[in-house]
Amino acid sequence: MTGEPAAVDPALITRIETSFAKQAFMATLGARLVRVAPGEVEIALPVSAHLCQQHGFVHAGAVSTIADSAAGYAALTAMPAGAGILTAEFKINLLAPATGEELRALGKVVKAGRTLTLATAEVFAVSGGARKLCAMMTATCMTIAGREGVAD
Amino acid sequence: MTGEPAAVDPALITRIETSFAKQAFMATLGARLVRVAPGEVEIALPVSAHLCQQHGFVHAGAVSTIADSAAGYAALTAMPAGAGILTAEFKINLLAPATGEELRALGKVVKAGRTLTLATAEVFAVSGGARKLCAMMTATCMTIAGREGVAD
Amino acid sequence: MTGEPAAVDPALITRIETSFAKQAFMATLGARLVRVAPGEVEIALPVSAHLCQQHGFVHAGAVSTIADSAAGYAALTAMPAGAGILTAEFKINLLAPATGEELRALGKVVKAGRTLTLATAEVFAVSGGARKLCAMMTATCMTIAGREGVAD
Amino acid sequence: MTGEPAAVDPALITRIETSFAKQAFMATLGARLVRVAPGEVEIALPVSAHLCQQHGFVHAGAVSTIADSAAGYAALTAMPAGAGILTAEFKINLLAPATGEELRALGKVVKAGRTLTLATAEVFAVSGGARKLCAMMTATCMTIAGREGVAD
Repeated sequence: MTGEPAAVDPALITRIETSFAKQAFMATLGARLVRVAPGEVEIALPVSAHLCQQHGFVHAGAVSTIADSAAGYAALTAMPAGAGILTAEFKINLLAPATGEELRALGKVVKAGRTLTLATAEVFAVSGGARKLCAMMTATCMTIAGREGVAD
Repeated sequence: MTGEPAAVDPALITRIETSFAKQAFMATLGARLVRVAPGEVEIALPVSAHLCQQHGFVHAGAVSTIADSAAGYAALTAMPAGAGILTAEFKINLLAPATGEELRALGKVVKAGRTLTLATAEVFAVSGGARKLCAMMTATCMTIAGREGVAD
Repeated sequence: MTGEPAAVDPALITRIETSFAKQAFMATLGARLVRVAPGEVEIALPVSAHLCQQHGFVHAGAVSTIADSAAGYAALTAMPAGAGILTAEFKINLLAPATGEELRALGKVVKAGRTLTLATAEVFAVSGGARKLCAMMTATCMTIAGREGVAD
Repeated sequence: MTGEPAAVDPALITRIETSFAKQAFMATLGARLVRVAPGEVEIALPVSAHLCQQHGFVHAGAVSTIADSAAGYAALTAMPAGAGILTAEFKINLLAPATGEELRALGKVVKAGRTLTLATAEVFAVSGGARKLCAMMTATCMTIAGREGVAD
């Protein structure tokens, strides 16, 4: 966040943190929220055996999970408070094995609309301090207003 | 497997079962392999709190995980023994909340090629015996031959 | 249409035909509407030099065009009369060179929702009477109501 | 190409220009190649009635066509001379009506691999000198070596 300190509304951070804490699947994975800014959210996931597929790489589904949450929460930062969000669809390209010490998913809003918001997420494999792009997602998120049980 | 008994090569079933058992992430989710046939694989996932997102639905990432494994293993049934498989990309549309007692992901090969295989996966939410389509995936799987550590 | 003769409401056919006739790009390609049924639309495109890319195959963009229109009009058959439709996103896998005498795009609704409808389109290359699957699309179509200039 | 003059190998430009000139569908649309650099290609398409859909916007298929060519040629700049390229799949989100005087598709390589290359394309609608993002594509391109009739 170099060069843009103190710019983020604490209420926005709290809103995303509160919703993230309700995503039990994030705890199952061991993922944590590391950054919230308007239109941008970053999630970290330590690489761990319980996340892996048959070759010892993190499963594409786990990679997709943090990418989807990063993209979705980036989109949620652009929605009115109290609105709920659902992912309508996403597409992910898996570019390199998801290995190393930690994965980082960086979600960004491309275009926020009234009903649909397009966000992207890049996932980096971090190893020995180096970041390598291992996946890229585009996600279409839908703003849900006034539906019981679907807020934030 | 009603109506098509004894048609499947036991070696094929063993091959997929062995690979599936190495996917630690399947155990983390609680998913199990329920059906293997040439070009088709089905995976079951009991709905459970540890898989959910903030609204109490199964997280899109968990839905994607079983869809990706079902599509990928369907593709693997069409590849030569000893070949490895990696998902190059997938796209999933989330059509209805993933709720109920159990999810079922049904993967099918659309076209098997030498390098790339296209497979689809439909995910159904099962509740009180009724099946409702809740997600649809298309996945491009890549045959990997002769790469150390990447087999089946 | 074997087994389901006379089942299609003529008003539905007229509605799709009228909209199709307004798509100037269909005339530019040489595409024609060959079948309309509830949830299904088929479009034919004679293979022609003016549609090709550098290897002499029909350009992926032309293949996508008839697939998008077939999927979109299939979705439109499931929407209320007077509603407009826009494609929010689509994904297409190109499975084989688009060659032969004619392409056929067959669009089908997977799930019709109030705001979003998922449809698929399969594109076949027809040569000497044989049909070969050459592309598969999934498309998310959005129902537009009450927007000036966007109807059918 | 302001700020980076003389940086681009003329042979690379010629290679892409020669292939582009063979894409008859580009001439059908009225598209032209406006920029070639390593990993980046830009295509311009004047908005014209013969490209439109029923609401008077440029058809999503025409938008996809220039995006696919821009992404594909960007990928081709990263492939060995003589290699052919085919699009394996692409996904496009349509973000705003494609209107105005001209569309510009800007293709960029995200990751070049031996077999598969991921590229993106952004499409802008240009009106009165202002650029508005109207579509975003991700495309998986495949390097084809040694197949008769498939080069560049």
